[in-house]
Amino acid sequence: MSIQVPEAAKDLLERPIVVTLVTLMPDYQPQANPVWFEWDGEYIWINTARGRAKDKNMTARPKVTVLSTDPDDPYRYLEVRGVVAEVTEKGAFDHINHLSERYTGNPDFFGSDHKRRATEVRVIYKIRPTKISYHD
Amino acid sequence: MSIQVPEAAKDLLERPIVVTLVTLMPDYQPQANPVWFEWDGEYIWINTARGRAKDKNMTARPKVTVLSTDPDDPYRYLEVRGVVAEVTEKGAFDHINHLSERYTGNPDFFGSDHKRRATEVRVIYKIRPTKISYHD
Repeated sequence: MSIQVPEAAKDLLERPIVVTLVTLMPDYQPQANPVWFEWDGEYIWINTARGRAKDKNMTARPKVTVLSTDPDDPYRYLEVRGVVAEVTEKGAFDHINHLSERYTGNPDFFGSDHKRRATEVRVIYKIRPTKISYHD
Repeated sequence: MSIQVPEAAKDLLERPIVVTLVTLMPDYQPQANPVWFEWDGEYIWINTARGRAKDKNMTARPKVTVLSTDPDDPYRYLEVRGVVAEVTEKGAFDHINHLSERYTGNPDFFGSDHKRRATEVRVIYKIRPTKISYHD
């Protein structure tokens, strides 16, 4: 069963907001970064590249938290605590292009960076919410 | 010795930005909230109330992280990982009024909420940065 998102907060999961993703370093120091995301109604999808701190952290320590703040009101936010429920490279290249289009209008994420396009391994992380707090 | 903040990033510690504070719950799930803050050149000052999750978390697990994102550019940010170096109630009532003035222009944080003014115990947390990452 999935966690209920308050009706009034749904836009914070549906709009292309640059959210904050928090992962845990090996010493449990929180690591916080702005990231693109997408919500499929049940999971939050994050897309990163193999080898990054975020990738290593989410693989080794699946407790992660996402903070989605209204760009028009810094005091209105949805905090989603969750666990990484799925990690997959399948479809991750197409998915980063999809996110790129969603956020920038450009569906070609790598552009002219041919080396990066050829070498970078993209990964999708699906985060299952375990606790949601909405504040406005 | 204090950690060096890149010159180009200093505004992200000096402007009244609503930053994200990440603390650790007892099970090490990250807890992320927007908060007011202030930087004294060495420490990040956060002001909260006794009894809140943030208060309990920072007291029990002093590894915390602050993300300061440019309100005008969500891809420009400073991530400050640090430790809680000092916790004090001394001056914390005046300090929350000072933060209130800094962020809202109103130096009377509690306003007409007399009950809260009389019962809430404010606390200052001073966070010493251990690692700073600037991205623009």
